[in-house]
Amino acid sequence: MSNPAFVLKSVKNVVFEERPILPVMPKEVRVKVEQTGICGSDVHYWQKGRIGKFIMKEEDTMVLGHESSGIVVETGSEVSTLKVGDRVAIEPGFPCRYCDNCRDGKYNACEQMYFAATPPDDGTLQKYFNAPYDYCYKIPDHMDMEEAAMVEPVSVAVQICKRAKLQAVDNVLVFGCGPIGLLCQAVSKAYGCKKVIGIDISDGRLEFAKTFGADSVYKMPMRKETQGFEEFAKTVAQDINSKFGFEQGADVILEATGAEPCMAVGVYASKFEGRFVQAGMGKEFCSFPVTDALIKQLSWTGSIRYSTGVYPTAVELVASGKVDVKRLITNRFKFEEAEKAFELVHEGRTDVIKVIIEGVQD
Amino acid sequence: MSNPAFVLKSVKNVVFEERPILPVMPKEVRVKVEQTGICGSDVHYWQKGRIGKFIMKEEDTMVLGHESSGIVVETGSEVSTLKVGDRVAIEPGFPCRYCDNCRDGKYNACEQMYFAATPPDDGTLQKYFNAPYDYCYKIPDHMDMEEAAMVEPVSVAVQICKRAKLQAVDNVLVFGCGPIGLLCQAVSKAYGCKKVIGIDISDGRLEFAKTFGADSVYKMPMRKETQGFEEFAKTVAQDINSKFGFEQGADVILEATGAEPCMAVGVYASKFEGRFVQAGMGKEFCSFPVTDALIKQLSWTGSIRYSTGVYPTAVELVASGKVDVKRLITNRFKFEEAEKAFELVHEGRTDVIKVIIEGVQD
Amino acid sequence: MSNPAFVLKSVKNVVFEERPILPVMPKEVRVKVEQTGICGSDVHYWQKGRIGKFIMKEEDTMVLGHESSGIVVETGSEVSTLKVGDRVAIEPGFPCRYCDNCRDGKYNACEQMYFAATPPDDGTLQKYFNAPYDYCYKIPDHMDMEEAAMVEPVSVAVQICKRAKLQAVDNVLVFGCGPIGLLCQAVSKAYGCKKVIGIDISDGRLEFAKTFGADSVYKMPMRKETQGFEEFAKTVAQDINSKFGFEQGADVILEATGAEPCMAVGVYASKFEGRFVQAGMGKEFCSFPVTDALIKQLSWTGSIRYSTGVYPTAVELVASGKVDVKRLITNRFKFEEAEKAFELVHEGRTDVIKVIIEGVQD
Amino acid sequence: MSNPAFVLKSVKNVVFEERPILPVMPKEVRVKVEQTGICGSDVHYWQKGRIGKFIMKEEDTMVLGHESSGIVVETGSEVSTLKVGDRVAIEPGFPCRYCDNCRDGKYNACEQMYFAATPPDDGTLQKYFNAPYDYCYKIPDHMDMEEAAMVEPVSVAVQICKRAKLQAVDNVLVFGCGPIGLLCQAVSKAYGCKKVIGIDISDGRLEFAKTFGADSVYKMPMRKETQGFEEFAKTVAQDINSKFGFEQGADVILEATGAEPCMAVGVYASKFEGRFVQAGMGKEFCSFPVTDALIKQLSWTGSIRYSTGVYPTAVELVASGKVDVKRLITNRFKFEEAEKAFELVHEGRTDVIKVIIEGVQD
Repeated sequence: MSNPAFVLKSVKNVVFEERPILPVMPKEVRVKVEQTGICGSDVHYWQKGRIGKFIMKEEDTMVLGHESSGIVVETGSEVSTLKVGDRVAIEPGFPCRYCDNCRDGKYNACEQMYFAATPPDDGTLQKYFNAPYDYCYKIPDHMDMEEAAMVEPVSVAVQICKRAKLQAVDNVLVFGCGPIGLLCQAVSKAYGCKKVIGIDISDGRLEFAKTFGADSVYKMPMRKETQGFEEFAKTVAQDINSKFGFEQGADVILEATGAEPCMAVGVYASKFEGRFVQAGMGKEFCSFPVTDALIKQLSWTGSIRYSTGVYPTAVELVASGKVDVKRLITNRFKFEEAEKAFELVHEGRTDVIKVIIEGVQD
Repeated sequence: MSNPAFVLKSVKNVVFEERPILPVMPKEVRVKVEQTGICGSDVHYWQKGRIGKFIMKEEDTMVLGHESSGIVVETGSEVSTLKVGDRVAIEPGFPCRYCDNCRDGKYNACEQMYFAATPPDDGTLQKYFNAPYDYCYKIPDHMDMEEAAMVEPVSVAVQICKRAKLQAVDNVLVFGCGPIGLLCQAVSKAYGCKKVIGIDISDGRLEFAKTFGADSVYKMPMRKETQGFEEFAKTVAQDINSKFGFEQGADVILEATGAEPCMAVGVYASKFEGRFVQAGMGKEFCSFPVTDALIKQLSWTGSIRYSTGVYPTAVELVASGKVDVKRLITNRFKFEEAEKAFELVHEGRTDVIKVIIEGVQD
Repeated sequence: MSNPAFVLKSVKNVVFEERPILPVMPKEVRVKVEQTGICGSDVHYWQKGRIGKFIMKEEDTMVLGHESSGIVVETGSEVSTLKVGDRVAIEPGFPCRYCDNCRDGKYNACEQMYFAATPPDDGTLQKYFNAPYDYCYKIPDHMDMEEAAMVEPVSVAVQICKRAKLQAVDNVLVFGCGPIGLLCQAVSKAYGCKKVIGIDISDGRLEFAKTFGADSVYKMPMRKETQGFEEFAKTVAQDINSKFGFEQGADVILEATGAEPCMAVGVYASKFEGRFVQAGMGKEFCSFPVTDALIKQLSWTGSIRYSTGVYPTAVELVASGKVDVKRLITNRFKFEEAEKAFELVHEGRTDVIKVIIEGVQD
Repeated sequence: MSNPAFVLKSVKNVVFEERPILPVMPKEVRVKVEQTGICGSDVHYWQKGRIGKFIMKEEDTMVLGHESSGIVVETGSEVSTLKVGDRVAIEPGFPCRYCDNCRDGKYNACEQMYFAATPPDDGTLQKYFNAPYDYCYKIPDHMDMEEAAMVEPVSVAVQICKRAKLQAVDNVLVFGCGPIGLLCQAVSKAYGCKKVIGIDISDGRLEFAKTFGADSVYKMPMRKETQGFEEFAKTVAQDINSKFGFEQGADVILEATGAEPCMAVGVYASKFEGRFVQAGMGKEFCSFPVTDALIKQLSWTGSIRYSTGVYPTAVELVASGKVDVKRLITNRFKFEEAEKAFELVHEGRTDVIKVIIEGVQD
């Protein structure tokens, strides 16, 4: 059996190479990878070799990719919930199950986590990938393998909405109309939220957002030279709230850009005790309107990866048609074209939403 | 009947003058003010005429003071829970009771709030002060009027701890050993918290904190010229956690300084999903470690004034001796010496914790 | 001006009589009542003169009705949010605003509450009814007065779902397909819940439920003589969970019948730490499977009336078309036919869902 | 090496016999058991062979005991946090770590749980006992092995208080002054609760409770023949609330008896939205005042075993001296006297609180 893989050898240096096929441990399954979406973080490792504290060492190489679906081709001796032939979405991080965070259901905080395509852990852009059985979620027959791969970004959005304690009675501002922002909008809508507003600087993305999950969209203006940052942010916030009738402010802000102006506008646009979830990553330090947030007793938090129950919910949202992920897939590539796919994502064109790479064909 | 008052006429310009005695409305009581603590905000209005959006207009004048206790001297026609002679702590903000926030128990968000000594509303540094009966809390006989006045800053600390959802199982870092920081430490200890650490830059304040509420104290170091801000904050955070054995980080951070370095150290010192309450007010915009806070899904919030149940809890903490507020009162003044009292607070000496002014004597 | 009213003089004894038109207080509006739904509690007072601790005294009489909409015909001197001609849904309970529960946002616990058609407080089946302005909710032009009256039962369902902390990720069992049960199903569906199951003993009601809010329905079986109560309840619970694929049990149980077997089945059908809301009222004491509930750390609670934010949400659910209340109105009566309307509700026919009475015509 | 064990062969039939010493798996440690407390459940299995769904099969035998401390004598190959010689408290249930409940931090719901001395799993009344390293909690040097064994019942109380979301601002009623009730009182007091009331029918136990954790005690009266159950329960509830000044009712009720009258009194004594935790197990079905609980939107839940963070908190409560568990140990036995110890517990004398059995001596 052969196991071709798409491997990051060093910064900006990727190759296709044969990788060993790992034995299937008793509680694991081996999955033949069928479809893999590309995420900004994949491209970031390719270009920079690091994200935050995760740094690729000079002596290391790493298989890329972590948004994958596939077919079970072998099951470990203690696996009873999956069988060969099952079609699955793979949750790409496997925690230690022994630390306090794991035992407390906060496995996204596990410091011993194996996370696909996060140094030094190999990712899913290879023919075969082994995973613990409970991190492979069987999908219904009517879902295809592209949809199953898209369960990963949907899960990121579901986790964001979980952190926001999102409820149907909420009005929601979503900053950003990239894949995660769009999915936050669609999930918010699927959750029955009153008004979901998509915000971006790109007309094209806003146009798409309007047809996808958002009830309405708002184009983030540019700051005038004569405006201070605080004045600018307050003005935009007031404009949003008056435009959409949020007299007391928005209930929930989901920030999926990582841009400082969006954070400030979001804080000013929030109602008293509004809930703000930071999902977009930008600079380590940002200029943040602390005093306004204090006075309104804002509930600010972040969202990282996924937690228990998130993947099943994401599968259900896709399977039920509540979130139509197919529309997000704008570009498809063969496995052998993986580098071209990465280059396309790297370009950052606003008409490219989600790029997906087919698994190795026999 | 005469009603002398200590009045802010304009910035830095205070006088004693006679004020009209207002009629007692059906659900109000008239209180003869006995003791009034001075708060930083009182001094701030005196010196600057404004805090945030609260600005004293040129044509206005305002009675200062809002941390008061007194004796009921008249009751409105619909008051049945209080009678003449009752000794009370006065909660100094009276909400409208009709807006959504009031109806939802978030009366500290009421935009129609009457708040003593917040422009344009008169404060309590006058002989008589009228208040709705439900904002006057009867105190037990063994509590004196100084203790009753101190219920106000204790309530600020109780609200902060309420925002933190503080529990006995928590380890707590409190940044700041001024009156509010010290009271946060004492309240945390009264709530049974595991370890309560007081943090400040002043040796004298730390010495006091050690004997008041904190289990241990930590002296915040100065940043070296060669250290970046991020490196500095991370180093201090690690030092705190290793010194006090918080392997996973602190459970709760109460920030009562408003200083940027404390905010950053607090974020870095927090455990995954730690709870951070910003209580100290500094600049409108602060440099905030957003990415680290995001990754650890920090629960950040602010705390403003008080909410339902806070004053009764504060009364109980003082009455039971769990929080020994008398030790915080370092300086006492007659009503006629009010300006001297304000000047002393304005000096900001570390040996001055709480300054209190006696009410007008007959 | 004349003010005819439909008045309960004593048990089973109703008359039409002229009632005084009360003066409009500064924060009140006078509403000309347009439509009024009849609730089981109205009928209960008519038949029994009491519900729980609310007992009509012999010397008292009481105007019936509390599910009403109307048009503002006069506004008090301090009302700025409503004007004459505004069309409103009336929340029929007015709390004191001064007790601890009111101040804490739990106004449904207010012991001084004025509640329409709860002894000794007069209800809305009269031409004019005065209410505090903040308990009258303006409705959009496209909503009619029948829909506005239906906001009351929708609010009851919204409060039940609020108590359940209902989220889109939940599977929900709703016991009962009467008006409240049906509305719980419709609201759950509007909130995006995964699967909503309606349960009842009446085929006709189940048929209707299927076309209204429920994804599926389940007919509650009769207990066989040979079955113990525990065995029966466990068997039914297992049948429900296996039929609908709730392997771990249902996430949420909304009990809207007040019947003991439903309570027991609900407990057994719940997952670990499931949320159970008791909304239906039956006997004071019920036989409850305490040990099973304990072992699964069930979160049991009740739901009574409404709380802050509930009425606006209900208005939005009706206005947006998410809950099609018109379909529930099966019978309409003129004001003069009020007693016939009450008799129809009293019959308890399964084809009668909601009976509504038109206001007094000029 | 020899491994004597105290084994339940069949109902009421216990023997001492040699048991195999199991190999230490990579993530396990072998503990030499030093002290073991006896719990009501141990006695129940001895006398009845079953509790609820846990039934000892005829062909099975089972080592008894699960409240144990000991010394690590061997560590598995992947254990780094413990070393030979470490003194530990053993959490006696080991979950599967793979099911949804485990992954969600609700490991007390794990259906694959190995739980010591719950059929068919062997307990700790043997010389050696193997446990996963993360379920063995190192204790400080100044804690002795008896105190370490008592960490188990303290953990039960900590879990109960966790389920109650107990806070320092709460007034607490604890029904029952047996070991768990007493520990609930002590933990509540350690958590800073305002007033903690111990309730029981035994004067002796109440006397002890007064000196242990309760601020005050209340003797549960007997129902008079002329009183209905409802009237009785309401009368007692009112008496408690008036005696201790809980005008609105108690904030929290911890029920540690499993007796129906206590449940009913607890519900009636609760304030609106009070929190009620059922910890005592009695009959499967109890007569429960559902309507009153509904109207006050009571938050009722149960508490079973322990969850993440509970054992460390219990260790800290004992280590810090906040909970003085030594005072609960009224009777001590040698390992060879184990049956006598069981007989003593079985007698149910009110002067016997906790009986403890020493481990096998070399």
